[in-house]
Amino acid sequence: MAAAAPPPAPTPAATALPDPTPIGYPLFTRIRLATASDVPHIHKLIHQLANFEHLAHHCSATEASLSSTLFTSPHFQSFTVFILELSHTPFPPQLHTQYSLFSPITQTITLDLPIDDPETETFKSNDKDCGFDVVVGGFVLFFPNYSTFLGKPGFYVEDLFVRECYRRKGFGKMLLSAVAAQAVKMGYGRVEWAVLDWNVNAIKFYEEMGAKVLQEWRICRLTDEALQAYANPAI
Amino acid sequence: MAAAAPPPAPTPAATALPDPTPIGYPLFTRIRLATASDVPHIHKLIHQLANFEHLAHHCSATEASLSSTLFTSPHFQSFTVFILELSHTPFPPQLHTQYSLFSPITQTITLDLPIDDPETETFKSNDKDCGFDVVVGGFVLFFPNYSTFLGKPGFYVEDLFVRECYRRKGFGKMLLSAVAAQAVKMGYGRVEWAVLDWNVNAIKFYEEMGAKVLQEWRICRLTDEALQAYANPAI
Repeated sequence: MAAAAPPPAPTPAATALPDPTPIGYPLFTRIRLATASDVPHIHKLIHQLANFEHLAHHCSATEASLSSTLFTSPHFQSFTVFILELSHTPFPPQLHTQYSLFSPITQTITLDLPIDDPETETFKSNDKDCGFDVVVGGFVLFFPNYSTFLGKPGFYVEDLFVRECYRRKGFGKMLLSAVAAQAVKMGYGRVEWAVLDWNVNAIKFYEEMGAKVLQEWRICRLTDEALQAYANPAI
Repeated sequence: MAAAAPPPAPTPAATALPDPTPIGYPLFTRIRLATASDVPHIHKLIHQLANFEHLAHHCSATEASLSSTLFTSPHFQSFTVFILELSHTPFPPQLHTQYSLFSPITQTITLDLPIDDPETETFKSNDKDCGFDVVVGGFVLFFPNYSTFLGKPGFYVEDLFVRECYRRKGFGKMLLSAVAAQAVKMGYGRVEWAVLDWNVNAIKFYEEMGAKVLQEWRICRLTDEALQAYANPAI
């Protein structure tokens, strides 16, 4: 008797007018471990960060200095970098053996408007498994620190940076969350970083992420000639 | 014609009256790398530090947690501890193979009055090459950090502690100087640590050592439940 049955009531979807354009623009994101082949991109990102902080005159990092000091120890046991990659097409399945220590975190976000990236050529990803559509959008550099009171390690985040055209989309939070997740996975006790006391937007952002700002502590730094003066410890 | 020459004029030292008693009491000091066998002492020192800072309720370090997280990587590449040892007799020659990475720093100081150490039994050194006279007086725990702007590592000093009866004798400076000297030796760019902003004596001491106090930076910390919330990074 199905043929005699009245037609089903139209659903709202069926009655709505079809959209002339898709709702938003998908952007595929991936956070993966950086390797030595990412140094040229990391170097450029560090200098963009220094410019952003108006501290370019203090930035003496070169590709050579980064290459000789990063990626010389196993990931997570020393200085470690997560790279944020962005693509307009989905990332390929994660079969690569390099991912045994850390499975890349992929996420798809939907943008209201497409992002116009003026530096796609400069920041084309080095990952040979991906198409030429993949660009590097930011990074986070972190390393183990230690709490004697907890009797266990944590992570200290030295730098977190997202390129200008990709800001205010949640990528900073994705990068920091990836570090926090790794800390939890490793049974670590803390994730720490530093913020400028006048950067109220950053402080608000970090507090919303659950961080506490330690108001009483100040960082002491021994560097340049003052450090070199200790070349002979017995003096 | 030397025999006919007039006798040389007496030097001030030759004319001074001999001292009836030695001027002061010598104390022999040594800074050496700690090993796993030092964990019981390090554990006690950490708890003394927590008591000193009125933070004992935040100190959950145990010998087991320290043993499972310290001394698992080569010295200087990860969490590293220097131990301060004190003795009334000179330290033996440094022939031990364990010293190949870091030659212990020995120094002799002269005290006006002998130090009465009420914990000599508790802090008797574990070093089998030394006599029973050697006690542990303090420690410094540090690990590599990284400056992206310099493009090179540094050291971060997490804890510096000298037992109460040995304070105000320059031992804190000796321990911090040893870390700074090691940083210089390794070509590192900075030594950093944190200080409480109300601890004016400590700030004065650090500034006299050449350190700058970074007034604008605040430390952010994600810990406990707020950290555990990031167990799944995709959420």
